Amino acid sequence: MPSSDGRTVVADIGEAELLSRILPLLPAAAAASIGPGDDAAVVGTTDGRFVVTTDLMVHGPDFRLAWSSPWELGWKAAATNLSDVAAMGARPTALVIAIAAPPSLPVSSLERFAEGVRDACAELAPGCGVVGGDLSVSETFTIAVTAFGDLGGRAPVLRSGARPGDVVAVSGELGRAGAGLRLLFTEAVDDAGVPDPDRAVSLRERSGDVLSAQFAPRPPIADGVLAAVAGATAMLDLSDGLAIDAARLATASGVGIDFDGASLGPDRAMALGGGEDHSLLATFPPTTSLPGGFRAIGVVVREPVGLVLADGRPVERSGWDPYAGWDGARG
Amino acid sequence: MPSSDGRTVVADIGEAELLSRILPLLPAAAAASIGPGDDAAVVGTTDGRFVVTTDLMVHGPDFRLAWSSPWELGWKAAATNLSDVAAMGARPTALVIAIAAPPSLPVSSLERFAEGVRDACAELAPGCGVVGGDLSVSETFTIAVTAFGDLGGRAPVLRSGARPGDVVAVSGELGRAGAGLRLLFTEAVDDAGVPDPDRAVSLRERSGDVLSAQFAPRPPIADGVLAAVAGATAMLDLSDGLAIDAARLATASGVGIDFDGASLGPDRAMALGGGEDHSLLATFPPTTSLPGGFRAIGVVVREPVGLVLADGRPVERSGWDPYAGWDGARG
Repeated sequence: MPSSDGRTVVADIGEAELLSRILPLLPAAAAASIGPGDDAAVVGTTDGRFVVTTDLMVHGPDFRLAWSSPWELGWKAAATNLSDVAAMGARPTALVIAIAAPPSLPVSSLERFAEGVRDACAELAPGCGVVGGDLSVSETFTIAVTAFGDLGGRAPVLRSGARPGDVVAVSGELGRAGAGLRLLFTEAVDDAGVPDPDRAVSLRERSGDVLSAQFAPRPPIADGVLAAVAGATAMLDLSDGLAIDAARLATASGVGIDFDGASLGPDRAMALGGGEDHSLLATFPPTTSLPGGFRAIGVVVREPVGLVLADGRPVERSGWDPYAGWDGARG
Repeated sequence: MPSSDGRTVVADIGEAELLSRILPLLPAAAAASIGPGDDAAVVGTTDGRFVVTTDLMVHGPDFRLAWSSPWELGWKAAATNLSDVAAMGARPTALVIAIAAPPSLPVSSLERFAEGVRDACAELAPGCGVVGGDLSVSETFTIAVTAFGDLGGRAPVLRSGARPGDVVAVSGELGRAGAGLRLLFTEAVDDAGVPDPDRAVSLRERSGDVLSAQFAPRPPIADGVLAAVAGATAMLDLSDGLAIDAARLATASGVGIDFDGASLGPDRAMALGGGEDHSLLATFPPTTSLPGGFRAIGVVVREPVGLVLADGRPVERSGWDPYAGWDGARG
């Protein structure tokens, strides 16, 4: 099936033809015995259980087509869900993806989206593939991903198992995705504050590295299983910012967390408040040799329960999230 | 947690409070060892495999708030996905539900939606429950459901196994959901053709029975497993109309299907062309005693391959679907 010419839009062709263009671009899942095309797929597990997580990306509050390429959207939709699977200590096995696309969206955008999903699976979770999905039309471009994982016989690593004295460790970056978003909202908008594609292009030339953490994050997926095998007592995916997510882990575990301020880097506020890092935050018994890319950044304390400190002083939980008070603008 | 007053809207409260109101209303899944609240859920299987299907419902092309109650939307979102699981010959075990709600949607609407999901699971698939989800905001009310099932060690019943001489049978209604939709588009719109809530209320008083097939379908979920156990050679869920869906089964199996016209009821065009029945269409070896609610409506023929006949004469594949050429109107 030839690639689309860039002028054909979703409204021009039926769902069957759209699927015939997109399905060949998607990766197969090694664990699937029945893939896309029937009423449902059938996926195998190694231990009789499956891990499942779901997430919506909505144009406006979650992404802007003026900034992100379709390939980046596909990559990010896969990567952020794979990260939730990894945060349970599981190996990602499969995805299902439902998309509601505006009738005016070029079909080629959906093809590039599929390639982004494919490339993220290949790089971050080899063997993981797409086993099903749905295509619909909507005035609001919406992407719903559900991801599956296999625990390989291990217990899942929950948020609730951290114990006083445990080491707090992170694998992945802190604050770079948030720094990228701040750059976009200051330098890739027009004078009225509306996302501007031309300014985004020129910003990419100057600051592509920090933007890539926002547009196409590379979460340390394999470190999820490594943490579980090493005996992590608690773990979660950093999606809303270190301060907020660490407080969730602390609350669930009935403990406090005290970060070593020096380990949070030069922009401590962004490391604590920037969202969408999709790094893994985990706690380990103090004698554990930290696995994979994990580095120590603090310690679990008995109290104050549910609170997050840095060098013993309380940390503000509010981060910097320009999408939080979403005003209905799209761009 | 008290029920909402009907005046509080989604924009008034945060995701955490919204979840705290909705989660207690949702049914637990018997198969879940870890339910909502962590990065992901963990669900058990009886045979090391899971069945998975996903579906989007978008305000505009798929439903109208002027016509459907939030309870009905929850019921239908669950029922239609349970039906896809049943069509594989599986028992539904769990759902994940992601919702993008307009900021102006009353919180009480989401509570009624959750109760619709709960009631559908309790009536159609006892033991099936909600193990996770996501809440987001969008100008377009969008519901993404992913459903899971357990095959209990049996092979899945695919679309591709029908053989010449097999009996074609259906469990559930034919054409009533389509008849309900036709009624709505003729009698529950204002003079400009826009869905009108007041006229819908008065139409419900006159024709509530046929509307209920459209608003809150009751697919014969348990008949999916019964069909598999009885040896069904092929099966699918009727979502786009009998003619279109039967042609899909015929094409996948490399056979033709000849319906007994008299078995299609008085409005044969609606039985063949009306969508959203969510009945089960299955084929059985000719000597099989039809299980559950299945009744014979035709026979599998060697040719013409991929085509559907009634009493030996070709059937038009096009159905009556006012949503197909969706014009962007909502209502």
